[in-house]
Amino acid sequence: MNSLKSSPEGTILVVGSVALDTVETPFGKAEEVLGGSATYFAYSASYFSRVNLVGIVGTDFPSEHLEFLKSRGVDLRGLERKEGKTFRWKARYGEDPNERETLSLCLNVFQDFHPQLLEDYRSSEYVFLANIDPDLHLEILEQISGSKLIACDTMNIWIESKKEILLRTLRKVDALILNDSEARMLTGEMNLIRAGKSILDLGPRIAVIKKGEHGALLFSEGSYFASPAYPIESIYDPTGAGDSFAGGFLGYLAKNGNEGEENLRKAIVYGSVMASYTVEGFSFNRLKSLTEADLEQRYKEFKKLTQF
Amino acid sequence: MNSLKSSPEGTILVVGSVALDTVETPFGKAEEVLGGSATYFAYSASYFSRVNLVGIVGTDFPSEHLEFLKSRGVDLRGLERKEGKTFRWKARYGEDPNERETLSLCLNVFQDFHPQLLEDYRSSEYVFLANIDPDLHLEILEQISGSKLIACDTMNIWIESKKEILLRTLRKVDALILNDSEARMLTGEMNLIRAGKSILDLGPRIAVIKKGEHGALLFSEGSYFASPAYPIESIYDPTGAGDSFAGGFLGYLAKNGNEGEENLRKAIVYGSVMASYTVEGFSFNRLKSLTEADLEQRYKEFKKLTQF
Repeated sequence: MNSLKSSPEGTILVVGSVALDTVETPFGKAEEVLGGSATYFAYSASYFSRVNLVGIVGTDFPSEHLEFLKSRGVDLRGLERKEGKTFRWKARYGEDPNERETLSLCLNVFQDFHPQLLEDYRSSEYVFLANIDPDLHLEILEQISGSKLIACDTMNIWIESKKEILLRTLRKVDALILNDSEARMLTGEMNLIRAGKSILDLGPRIAVIKKGEHGALLFSEGSYFASPAYPIESIYDPTGAGDSFAGGFLGYLAKNGNEGEENLRKAIVYGSVMASYTVEGFSFNRLKSLTEADLEQRYKEFKKLTQF
Repeated sequence: MNSLKSSPEGTILVVGSVALDTVETPFGKAEEVLGGSATYFAYSASYFSRVNLVGIVGTDFPSEHLEFLKSRGVDLRGLERKEGKTFRWKARYGEDPNERETLSLCLNVFQDFHPQLLEDYRSSEYVFLANIDPDLHLEILEQISGSKLIACDTMNIWIESKKEILLRTLRKVDALILNDSEARMLTGEMNLIRAGKSILDLGPRIAVIKKGEHGALLFSEGSYFASPAYPIESIYDPTGAGDSFAGGFLGYLAKNGNEGEENLRKAIVYGSVMASYTVEGFSFNRLKSLTEADLEQRYKEFKKLTQF
């Protein structure tokens, strides 16, 4: 088992949303709480490596959230603050955490977000393009160079409405991290093994298919790995699980500076560990007290529950 | 790695259907081929231990199928042959193997099946009550005694129509093996971890939830194990996968005569191996050429694809 602090850290650039969420689940409701893909990713990755966050918030964004991210060492020089309201998202989850109903989505200041990366961000070794408009993905890709690994996420609305642009993005990234229904939609393959392999034909050399309660699948050249999810009986709030997963995954890779199969697999498990803690509370409620010892403990439990 | 032939074999009694299936999948169609829960179970378990099959066929049942089962050493003294037609089932599977449409189901001679077990079958160490009417389960349970492990399967129609009787059966069995949607329906728990634990409260000390392409979960007292499915790109015919799984699972336990956690986990993986071969062909097309070396090879591949 590697200690989390043992190796030199890489730095990850993440570009995505920083939001105020209102979420209802069978376990309760949280109003106007910290959310956003870049936020969950950055917080999660911060347990493994340095993170530079690029995003935008309005003047209504509580400064305590900024302090919270800074407390984990997240570099916020790339977080723009603009006159207006912060991105807001309202959703309701059913008994099945996959049944999510978006009640409202107000882009607000995010609407005209076209980030100009800081000079020192442009050569980031690791990059995560969170689930945002593929046109924005391309704008950012044009500003960066010399990266060791670029990963991106996407979702159904982009696959439906901007598939050509998304495919152009995919030819420029090293890894695609997406969920099972998105993988099926993107590739037209119902079978997830075929879907994963098809993604590798679209450009990325690494494909990660997240399956929620069923775990995650990793596809890379000539290799395949299946990880279960950590058994959680009470999923308080599924929001951010996917971005936390990506944060743990890329964070671990950046920390170790190595994308060999063994490290990729460990990264998947650390991603799963981060996602499992995320869903144990609304917003960042569980994550905010998370220690590195907690991560190591759950990593060990993953070993135990998959060993035969 | 245990060699499959190294230990003394237990004997398993299986009671279930022996059928002639007509199945259509995106890969083709098979008409009037060998099927049935007891058949798939027995054939699969025969790779690990001795199997006594109890079921019923009509006078139209091809004798080549009997020879086929005998060639694997399956004891057919308990297979009744009765004037009339054999149980027939027609189904169509969609692109998603979970989308199954039953086109017709004719119980025929199975309609009045009330087996009287042979004397030497009544003390079978291992028993599998395949997915049949829970009233039949109870009839059989009254005829057996001294078993080491009794397992059963069930399905949605029994959960809906005969829940009280099913619950009575569950109080008398050691293991319940069922699929994810059935586990949710039986327990009323959407979360599979809660569902698995709830099953342990209903009587069985072992619960196995089969999740198709997502693998299987094992619940026993104080323990939990998650196994992925073997990655199969072309699922020719999902029929019999669950019963083959159960055959590999119980077969392995019977062979080793030990239900410690380590053996239970290995049994789950051998069950998954058997299911994976079953779906690679229509009916028994892939299974009929299966060697013990094939099993060992795939078991090793399971280790590789889950290791981190």
